[in-house]
Amino acid sequence: MAQQDHAADLSADADVVAEGVRASLHDQPMGANLAGAGEVATFPDSEPLPLDCGVALGPFDIAYKTYGALNADKSNAILVCHALTGDQYCASANPVTGREGWWTTMIGPGKPVDTDRYFVICSNILGGCMGSSGPSMPNPRTGRPYGLDFPVITIADMVRAQVRLIDHLGIGQLFSVIGGSMGGMQVIEWAARYKDRVYTAVPVATAARHSSQNIAFHEVGRQAVMADPDWREGRYLEQGTVPRKGLAVARMAAHITYLSEEALHRKFGRNLQARDAKTFSFDADFEVESYLRYQGAGFVERFDANSYLYITRAMDYFDLPAEYDGKLANAFKGTQTRFCIASFTSDWLYPTRENRTIMQALNAVAANVSFVEIESDKGHDAFLLNEPEFLATIGGFLNAAARRRGLPGAKG
Amino acid sequence: MAQQDHAADLSADADVVAEGVRASLHDQPMGANLAGAGEVATFPDSEPLPLDCGVALGPFDIAYKTYGALNADKSNAILVCHALTGDQYCASANPVTGREGWWTTMIGPGKPVDTDRYFVICSNILGGCMGSSGPSMPNPRTGRPYGLDFPVITIADMVRAQVRLIDHLGIGQLFSVIGGSMGGMQVIEWAARYKDRVYTAVPVATAARHSSQNIAFHEVGRQAVMADPDWREGRYLEQGTVPRKGLAVARMAAHITYLSEEALHRKFGRNLQARDAKTFSFDADFEVESYLRYQGAGFVERFDANSYLYITRAMDYFDLPAEYDGKLANAFKGTQTRFCIASFTSDWLYPTRENRTIMQALNAVAANVSFVEIESDKGHDAFLLNEPEFLATIGGFLNAAARRRGLPGAKG
Repeated sequence: MAQQDHAADLSADADVVAEGVRASLHDQPMGANLAGAGEVATFPDSEPLPLDCGVALGPFDIAYKTYGALNADKSNAILVCHALTGDQYCASANPVTGREGWWTTMIGPGKPVDTDRYFVICSNILGGCMGSSGPSMPNPRTGRPYGLDFPVITIADMVRAQVRLIDHLGIGQLFSVIGGSMGGMQVIEWAARYKDRVYTAVPVATAARHSSQNIAFHEVGRQAVMADPDWREGRYLEQGTVPRKGLAVARMAAHITYLSEEALHRKFGRNLQARDAKTFSFDADFEVESYLRYQGAGFVERFDANSYLYITRAMDYFDLPAEYDGKLANAFKGTQTRFCIASFTSDWLYPTRENRTIMQALNAVAANVSFVEIESDKGHDAFLLNEPEFLATIGGFLNAAARRRGLPGAKG
Repeated sequence: MAQQDHAADLSADADVVAEGVRASLHDQPMGANLAGAGEVATFPDSEPLPLDCGVALGPFDIAYKTYGALNADKSNAILVCHALTGDQYCASANPVTGREGWWTTMIGPGKPVDTDRYFVICSNILGGCMGSSGPSMPNPRTGRPYGLDFPVITIADMVRAQVRLIDHLGIGQLFSVIGGSMGGMQVIEWAARYKDRVYTAVPVATAARHSSQNIAFHEVGRQAVMADPDWREGRYLEQGTVPRKGLAVARMAAHITYLSEEALHRKFGRNLQARDAKTFSFDADFEVESYLRYQGAGFVERFDANSYLYITRAMDYFDLPAEYDGKLANAFKGTQTRFCIASFTSDWLYPTRENRTIMQALNAVAANVSFVEIESDKGHDAFLLNEPEFLATIGGFLNAAARRRGLPGAKG
């Protein structure tokens, strides 16, 4: 959910948090300028994707990036699942924003997900706006952007599309599936539905079903987008508008939930923004106001408003226990996958208790699971940041599993 | 901050939480239809109110309601301070909404604030939209609504205006000043600045300064309002529009913060709204979505968007310690006022630690203070709801203070 831009910004120098909007990275709507965005697997109309809503989607595209090399027996592949506003650029510069990958704390040479050792695959989710089929992409039936004609999707649909990609890459069993926030939802969906294709699973800062409060925050964001007259009932790409203000408000509200009260206090407190006294106006007097405005404005430059609607909806719909007679443990019956679950003490969006529920379900079916709650005051965003204990835990878990799996040891 | 409508709605039957917008209570903008809204004290241009921003505001109106009777020596008066979206109708039906008073759990015959015994005064705050001077009221200089020409005000300004009202009523010392949320800010401002006029003070679920996170949520709300093209740079009353969508989004976001995750879960969970299955659309599938939409839509019918901007700004500016060399204790030096402070375990907007800070400052100057943290899962809204331990605590505190003050005992 949280992604590279705001995580990076939170630790950026205060002067970066300027009041104004940063220079527009591109003036075209999303989806129009993704030529050269990386590899794209296209699945033909003859092999449509069956979606939970009943639609068979085809043809469809899945855009992805890989890092490292697949070994001869294809046993070293790790699928990285991104969060709400993420993309396939987990470990390399994003061609739209120019920023570094969103999970470079975790993934790269010598990192916990060691690209000298593992073959890392990260795909833009179905419904996303970085090259995979989604509402901003052309509807092959009409040649115009899908808009709200794109079918409403689920986390299970996203994972179905990833399964097709993994098939396409000729990989049987993934050494690991790993992801935080919405990425973690995909991880447990994989582990539940495709048990023999997942050797290890690492769900981080996530939940087996979306809480009432989280649905509520998402609904605020959707209403903010749809309240913007430039949204044009979802047809803004054709009509040459962008619902900037609405999407920015949605992002601002969401952004608060990615941080902790402590992190906001430590970073901003009640500091005034580049002034000595209150202005007695509605300008951004406080640094935290400037920061939020900057986050909102920047987000609009890189993300599609309709994708935001679709992806938040998919998260709200996520309820894995409901698919298994209300018992999450049933989802994992017979699993041989080894799990490592991590949560963060100050994460109030996906608090420890939500993650512990997953552990308890795994325990109930005698699965192999380790669970760690990391002490951090950085809120939900912590999973993207340099949290040494967290990174060491994941690295150690993968290392032990790699030995067990017979993968060669770490280089260097 | 939280007010009668949503507190009542949360405990209302589910069928009240209908998907649609309830019938418009009035089609006129706020301020236009407040004839007969209760008593109004008008202070002439010759006696302007000096505001923190430097403006001398005059003439100005303060609308208020009273309950009970003032005794002969004027020693039984209690000033009730309302929260962000409240008004003077704390214990009687609101003429705009037709709903009962917002604090009838606390105030009325035989209630903790016993109107058979005390003379209760509740005024609409300066900047409000229920008859007191504010952005929706006519600017006497132009005859047109103030809009953004209304000066930006502070909590201290609101209290200055209340002091003028209490003078106008001929009351020297208030037996008590009581309020929750922003009302609690006014209470401690009174206790700090007008020590000899406050016999007892009851700040509830409040803070001595607004946190970074709370400023952030307010900024989201303001941006949502100002993003609405119908806001017309604040001139919507003259131009015949109402920024309904923006204000509704602001209210929805704020509303989540008034509740607890537990309260949302208990009330709504992941229940679907009047349907058996997901619609795979952006309709309000979940009850919590319907509830929020309903809250947003209803709020727009009773509240002025510019008032929302001004009052949230006043709260954000509130920083009592900053006015006293950064030491809150300095604000209370020499106080003879008796304090009773209450907080609620599940209130994450004004958590116990913020309230405890006030207690500690009072302890540091050896003030007479009792503090109670009430076990409740209802979040910030708890102060408006039927919380027996809370109500008994306040009633007991006032009763003891009344005996000490020599007021006659409770009737009946």
